[in-house]
Amino acid sequence: MKTAVLHIGIGNVGRELLEQVTTYGSDLVYHGLFDVAGGLFAADGLTSSQLHAFPENADKAVAALDCVDQMTDPFILVDTTAINLTLPVMKAALQRGGAVTMSNKKPLTGSQADWDELHALGGNRLFYETSVGAGLPVISTLKSLLATGDEIVEIQGCFSGTLGYIFSELETGTSFSAAVTQAKALGFTEPDPRDDLSGMDVARKVLILSRVLGKKLEINDVAVEKLYSDALADLAPEDFIKQVSTLDSEYAQKATDAKQAGNVLRYVATVSPTEHSVRLMAVPATSDIGGLHGPDNIIVIKTKRYLDNPLIVKGPGAGVPVTAAGVFADCLAAELVLKGEHAL
Amino acid sequence: MKTAVLHIGIGNVGRELLEQVTTYGSDLVYHGLFDVAGGLFAADGLTSSQLHAFPENADKAVAALDCVDQMTDPFILVDTTAINLTLPVMKAALQRGGAVTMSNKKPLTGSQADWDELHALGGNRLFYETSVGAGLPVISTLKSLLATGDEIVEIQGCFSGTLGYIFSELETGTSFSAAVTQAKALGFTEPDPRDDLSGMDVARKVLILSRVLGKKLEINDVAVEKLYSDALADLAPEDFIKQVSTLDSEYAQKATDAKQAGNVLRYVATVSPTEHSVRLMAVPATSDIGGLHGPDNIIVIKTKRYLDNPLIVKGPGAGVPVTAAGVFADCLAAELVLKGEHAL
Repeated sequence: MKTAVLHIGIGNVGRELLEQVTTYGSDLVYHGLFDVAGGLFAADGLTSSQLHAFPENADKAVAALDCVDQMTDPFILVDTTAINLTLPVMKAALQRGGAVTMSNKKPLTGSQADWDELHALGGNRLFYETSVGAGLPVISTLKSLLATGDEIVEIQGCFSGTLGYIFSELETGTSFSAAVTQAKALGFTEPDPRDDLSGMDVARKVLILSRVLGKKLEINDVAVEKLYSDALADLAPEDFIKQVSTLDSEYAQKATDAKQAGNVLRYVATVSPTEHSVRLMAVPATSDIGGLHGPDNIIVIKTKRYLDNPLIVKGPGAGVPVTAAGVFADCLAAELVLKGEHAL
Repeated sequence: MKTAVLHIGIGNVGRELLEQVTTYGSDLVYHGLFDVAGGLFAADGLTSSQLHAFPENADKAVAALDCVDQMTDPFILVDTTAINLTLPVMKAALQRGGAVTMSNKKPLTGSQADWDELHALGGNRLFYETSVGAGLPVISTLKSLLATGDEIVEIQGCFSGTLGYIFSELETGTSFSAAVTQAKALGFTEPDPRDDLSGMDVARKVLILSRVLGKKLEINDVAVEKLYSDALADLAPEDFIKQVSTLDSEYAQKATDAKQAGNVLRYVATVSPTEHSVRLMAVPATSDIGGLHGPDNIIVIKTKRYLDNPLIVKGPGAGVPVTAAGVFADCLAAELVLKGEHAL
């Protein structure tokens, strides 16, 4: 039996996912493909040439929500956009018995009410492995631990490759402003580096992890230490880059103090029953978090059963091929749930 | 809908699994419980008091294979024994449309023909996450990577907490014989430490990982470096312990040579398209494998998509609660596959 795919969002991750699924996903058949340009839909599946001509052949009159309403077979709605507008489409798909997979974090980091509604509608048919750590097995591992009755004592991790790179550079004596400028030149930062340095991207991951653990909270409940001063907050982007060097002496001092104590600086996310925060910490250089280099992500999970020796997952937490593969893996898991296999 | 469980093997892991499932597995209902003492079976489910009185109330005339033959509802056969004899029961369960989960490695490390038959019968209904790294997400991660079209370049890892402990001790200047004696005293080794030092337990994990990657091979095809000399191989266990100190100077030399090059000794499993081996290696002290301490396991997965920065999972790779929880998680995954959830 084939499972139909409706896919919204043909950016870098979306296009790579389309490639991966059409190459390796033999039981997944694209019925719909949608982007800002419009959509394509065929009740009996789109052909390879139709898919590859997208978005040039997109029909402005074809909308994802209408197509969801027409689905009668088992289907998966995939969201690889980065916008809020897909939330109603997701809800409609789940209501119709479909599964939903996504690399889009927006629908997960809105209100607690939206999270609760998605999960109430979706149950086991809702997948978002790539929302934290891209393709690394983070969400599935946490859900497994919780489902088997384990209790989370503390989760700590680094979930920003950009900030990982910057603080690795600081260890080698590079100034903060030089590290930020290098990261920007390498394409590691958003166009305005403050979008990374604000810590909000990491805070959204803390929000998702906290909600997976069953906490009820909003993004403003996450304690976030931003990595630039209030004085730099209101500058135009080009002025920020010029004045970021005013932070150099402060960060150089912090790095020196850390080093003298055998520590290194890391921008650490913490989620525990009593805490949900992101902050700059001095951690032992020989610890798992301290040993992280460059753009890798890490999650260190301490539970009732993994207490003295935590469960650790580490590796690249961003990147187009691994993010697409993570969404693809979610689609395969969704396919299993939708199909069932009981054949007595 | 409830899913029936038939469970063979009530040792330490089995008893913990029974506790975990009856406490947290609300949709899993024990219909059968079996051990060497005999079995219990009830077509409409066993009560908590029947389960807790086992094996005192076991019926010698009730055999697991007969009970499998009577199953009509979706069911999971769980094997927490450490024997070969469960293989025919597994095959019967898969043939009847049931799912199979296990902590028992024996059915997976016999002949390639048995592996192939189990997988042909089982498809997505066969689960063995705990066969490598206990509760750590190793097998599921590998299968996800493969299913999405990634290609394994090399897997390296340490899969023996016992040998991890011994070589961590060597780093601190402890002699090999003292480290082995300590490990034995702490209960980390088998009664005869040569069962660990032979490397065969790690070799069986290499066999499983290789077969997951699609290689066709037998246990004798795994290149294994044993950690004691031929001269010590034929001694009685008590004589081995007396004479293990004859290895001390050799290991002290290896540890010193390694240290001078900035390396440490680790007993490393390697699986790649061209290699399946277990051997003592000097690895950089600052590498992920070199940084492993004590009884933790680690797996470092390099693929086409995770090449410069590999995907790493680390943590305790043995222990009763985490192994039982790993089998429980497999049961929950099996439940999803069996149920399906499509409800248009």
